[in-house]
This record gives sequence, structure tokens and C-alpha cells, in this order.
Amino acid sequence: MSEERSYTVAILGATGAVGSRLIEQLAQSSIPVASLKLLASARSAGQTREFRGETITIEEAQPESFEGVDLVLASAGGSVSARLLPEAVKRGAVAVDNTSFWRMNDNVPLVVPEVNEQALYEHNGIIANPNCSTIQMVVALEPIRQQFGLKQVIVSTYQAASGAGQSAWQELLDQAQQHLNGEPETAEILPVKGDKKHYPLAFNLLPQIDVFEDEGYTHEEYKMIHETKKIMLGDKNAKDIKVTATAVRVPVPVGHGETVYFEVADADGASTPKIQQALSEAPGVVLEDDPANQIYPQPINAEGKRDTFVGRVRPDLENDGSYHMWVVSDNLLKGAAWNAVQIAERLVALDLVRVPEGSAEKFA
Amino acid sequence: MSEERSYTVAILGATGAVGSRLIEQLAQSSIPVASLKLLASARSAGQTREFRGETITIEEAQPESFEGVDLVLASAGGSVSARLLPEAVKRGAVAVDNTSFWRMNDNVPLVVPEVNEQALYEHNGIIANPNCSTIQMVVALEPIRQQFGLKQVIVSTYQAASGAGQSAWQELLDQAQQHLNGEPETAEILPVKGDKKHYPLAFNLLPQIDVFEDEGYTHEEYKMIHETKKIMLGDKNAKDIKVTATAVRVPVPVGHGETVYFEVADADGASTPKIQQALSEAPGVVLEDDPANQIYPQPINAEGKRDTFVGRVRPDLENDGSYHMWVVSDNLLKGAAWNAVQIAERLVALDLVRVPEGSAEKFA
Repeated sequence: MSEERSYTVAILGATGAVGSRLIEQLAQSSIPVASLKLLASARSAGQTREFRGETITIEEAQPESFEGVDLVLASAGGSVSARLLPEAVKRGAVAVDNTSFWRMNDNVPLVVPEVNEQALYEHNGIIANPNCSTIQMVVALEPIRQQFGLKQVIVSTYQAASGAGQSAWQELLDQAQQHLNGEPETAEILPVKGDKKHYPLAFNLLPQIDVFEDEGYTHEEYKMIHETKKIMLGDKNAKDIKVTATAVRVPVPVGHGETVYFEVADADGASTPKIQQALSEAPGVVLEDDPANQIYPQPINAEGKRDTFVGRVRPDLENDGSYHMWVVSDNLLKGAAWNAVQIAERLVALDLVRVPEGSAEKFA
Repeated sequence: MSEERSYTVAILGATGAVGSRLIEQLAQSSIPVASLKLLASARSAGQTREFRGETITIEEAQPESFEGVDLVLASAGGSVSARLLPEAVKRGAVAVDNTSFWRMNDNVPLVVPEVNEQALYEHNGIIANPNCSTIQMVVALEPIRQQFGLKQVIVSTYQAASGAGQSAWQELLDQAQQHLNGEPETAEILPVKGDKKHYPLAFNLLPQIDVFEDEGYTHEEYKMIHETKKIMLGDKNAKDIKVTATAVRVPVPVGHGETVYFEVADADGASTPKIQQALSEAPGVVLEDDPANQIYPQPINAEGKRDTFVGRVRPDLENDGSYHMWVVSDNLLKGAAWNAVQIAERLVALDLVRVPEGSAEKFA
């Protein structure tokens, strides 16, 4: 560990659902912040936010905004990260990006600290934060993989509206009130703001998260498949673990749920109690698994917490070595802002807040 | 087919969420109803309901209520069916039961007409209607099984509040309004009325449907496993098809969703287009599967319809011969009232509304 250094930090996209939590999580973190810049679009410039007792005015994000910045936490959308993060790196800042834009880039580590912190040593100035539904799943799977190996994962998601942003979250609440009033529901954002059609989510289910790609899969489903492999195996096309996902949006404001079926490699060594034991000892995991007392993870209990909650661990009764579990986490915290700040904390602790020579060229 | 016969029908449990739909579905059916008796608990006796332009007064259900009745449609709870359906059979009435009480009885066929209508020929006076989440799943799986065989099914459910009855449905709406008002939510029914603890469902997810049994499974999950095998294979313990389920309650009033992963026996013969073709031609199934135009099943579109809606059909990219689909149906109609009335229609069409000799002894 280096001697005490303090950091100039910038938050890019400070006004969104994740942005406001980045400010909050950074304030609660162990990171010595010398000064904080809040950056957003021109539309939000001039607004203020509180940070550790200080009032900070939001500035419009420009390439020059990153002069003198050590560390950037970005959550302003993929096109903004595409354009501005190389500018930040060029100016010597290390960026932790919440968007999907850089995640599959071979020069960018994709990091969940509980799983692959060591990938931080290879960074070239940009580190990607994985997709929310991927993060909570790999946090729960990693302790199982470490002890028993993993052959296959089949996940179905129950994803909250806030995963599509603050406006989607508000739309859900507005629609719910309209429905209860007996009024027609207005749908302008969900399932995907930029897609052609919009449907109500309140009191409904939408089996579409992000746009459709080939083979009938959504982009969200591909993210869960490829990101899981990159995080756990270092290769998005790795064949060592089979991963399959179906992603469904549910009328919940905050907190994603996931049913996870998994097959371990060491079928003889594994058992439900041993898997529960591994989960109960794992960093970032809270085991909530007591069916006799109706204890299991619920989104309303996970909201506002940094942990990933796991319950309903049980054997598959048809396939030896296969199990099921139910995983819930706050998609805006471990799924986004907290994982990003946690990466930043680890960068600080490992003295990795510096851009290696030649990095800027890799994103030019 | 016999010459035109008309039937004295009784609906047992006429006031519940399913009971009101039994009246409605019976009215819309092809069954020649000579007269209709509406039976319920003493508390509801004296209320009236409309049927085909007639006003009918609800009577208290007693063993003697079934004198002269040909056909009973029952949805008044397991303990009522346990006690009264043998009394109905004793008096010569054939009963279609919506509760779970008789489903696993070896003397009781468990029937989804699209799948195993032939089981009706073996009835002994009681025919069981399967669990709501099971029905829609087997309707979607049967055309696939017929053409390509089935080796394995892994399902995750997204089940509506009304599956737990009218009061649970109302509780969801009340909680939603409380939440929007910023008030504490009252929870007295869900997840399971008779269980020890109750939790809010509004804006939340509850991974418990029915009570917990052994191995960490809920009764609902066992129902889906054993009923599927009894319906499709005639044996609740059959090993020919592996079935696994995770059941989750979601804040939707009406309409269950299911993500279904399945492995076919004929991996070389099957393909996504062939499976879609089989589904589009299957009775009771509507294929809604056009990702490019964001067409997929949604509970709000399924509500009030008799069909099972299937979409998101796609290949598993890791396992040859494995596929995924998304299945939605109105849990109160195909999942309950319509399937029961459909069974009654088939009994009438096949001239099976008669109790075979010696039947009553089987339920004594």
C-alpha cells in the first residue's frame, strides 16, 4: 500500500438513479477524496448535490473536465462513455464505467471484486462494471465454483424497473396509480426507451430487457452469458461453463430477483448444506435460507443494502450434482453504484489509480 | 354421441375468484344446462348470481344438495372437496374438482383436455383439474412432446396474486395503493393464508407459493413436478421426463408467466421454426412470437382469454436439442375455470356424465 494519497474524483452522469447512488456510496467509502467534480449533460449543469457536507455544482461534461482528475465513476450512458472515457484516460484519469459500452473490449477488465479483483492489475485506464443482473449472479456463484466447480448455469431473471433508469422507475409508479384509478396507463419508456413499442409494466410482465438480437435473444440475455464467462473465466466465449439466461422485467421498483439452476463439477463432494456453508462464508453474500421460518430473500428487504442475498438453496431432484437457488440484490447498489465504488476502493487499496503508459492509444 | 340430453349442474364454491368464472364459462359453454344450482358456505347462502338470463339464489352446500345433480364443478377449497365430492358421487353426480385434494389419487384422472382427454374414460365420478401453473405449461409442452419427445423441463414461474384467491388479489391492490400513498403496507394473506408469516407482494417478489415441504421445495413446486408427470405420462413418479420447478409470486393480479427450458429427445429433428410451427397448430395455444416487432405474451393481454400464449421460442446456445420459451395464460380461466368447464364439455360430448358402478366405494 502506498503512503496516504488523496484523489480528485469525477462522477460522470451525476443526476440519474445510479449517479445519485454513486455520490452516496462514494461518500460512505474509504476513499480519500481531495475534491469531487460532478459532471452531467448541459441540461443538468448548474444543479447542486451534497457530498460529505459540501455543496457541489454540477458542470457540463467536456473532454477538458478531466484535467487533473485521478478517478472517474461514469454512468451517463454508453455513447457518453464511448466518447468521453478515452479523453479522461488521455488526461491521466482512471475510469470505472457503469455502461455496457466497454465491457467486452479486450483491453478493459470487467470486474466484480469478490470474483476477479486480480483483473484490476491489467487495467489500461478503463475498468468496466458489469451488468446488474450479472453481478449478483456471479457473486453468488463464485464461492460455489471455487469449492465444487461449475459446469452449467440456467438463470431466469425478475428485474426491477429502475434497471432501465429513473424515468422507467417513475413510469412504473405512475402506471400503478393510473391502474388503481381505473385510468388508461401511459407507456412511453419501458420495455426499452429507444425501441419501437412501449407497454405498461405495472401489474404486468415484460419478457424483453434491452433490444432483440440474433437467435431470438435480447441484448440483456447475451450480456449475462458473455459477461459471466469473461468475469469468471476471463473469456467471453469460454466453453468450460455453460450459461443460459432469460431476462424478464417485473413490476418492482428496485431489487432484481433470479432463479438460478446450476450444475457443479464435483457432484460427489457437493451437498446442499455444504453449498449453504460456502455461501454463508462468502464475501458480499448474505444467506437468507430458512424455509421453516419463511426466511428467503425479497427485493423490499434488499433495497438500500450492498449485499447479495441468497436463499431457497436446494438440490435438483432429477439431476445429480445440480441445485437451485434464489438470488436478490439492489440493482442500483451492488448491481451498479456500489460495485463501481468498490472497484474504486480496491484500485486505491492496491495503488492502481494510475494510467499505464501507452493506454490512451488502446482506446483511440 | 348420445341423443340430446340436458344436465342438472351444481357449482360448489360459487362466490370465489374461480367460482364467478365457473358461472361465466359454463354460461358460454356448449353444455345443455337444464338447471343450475349454486352452492357455497352458509355465510354466502341467500346471495344471488345471474346465469344465462336467470337469477339463481346461492344455497348452503350439504350432502343432500347433490340429489338429482348430474355434474358438479367444485372450487370451494380442498377440505370441502374432500368431504362433499364423495357425497356427490354417492348420489350419482360426476364432479370436476379444482382443488388439489384429489389430484394425486390413483382413482382420479387429472386432465387437461388438449393433453390427455383419453383419461376421462377411466373416471370414477371425480375428475381433477390440475394446478394453474401446471396446466398452461403442459398445454405448451404437449405439441412439442408429440413431435420431438421430451427429456427434461426446467421451469421458473411468475405467478399472479389471484392464484391465491380473490382476497389475495384485493390485498395486492390495497398494498399498491398504500405504497403509493407512502403508508405502511398491510399483509395478512400472502404468501400463504394459513402460514405463520405474511409479507407484502406489491412492488415485491415472494419466492414461496403454498407451504414448504421436504428438500426445501414448496408444495406448489411439487405439484408442478408430479402433476406434469401424471398428465403427460400417466404416472406422477415417471422418470421418462425430468421436471423441475421454482415458483415465485409476482405483483400481477391475473395471468401467470413461465420461463420454460426444455430438452427434446429428437435433437436432430427439432428446430426453432419446427417447434414454432407445432405450437401454432396446437389446440389451445396461440403463438405470439415476433421479436422484431416486440410481440410476446404478456399477462395484461392474456387476461380474460381461454388460450395459452407462447413466445420467445429460441434455441439454447449451449446444449444441442434444448430450447427456451415464455408461456402466459389467465390462471383463473385455462388455469382453473375454463379447464374445468372444458373437461365438462368433453364429458358431455363423450357421453361420460355417468358414475360407473362401484365408484362411490373408491372414495369411501
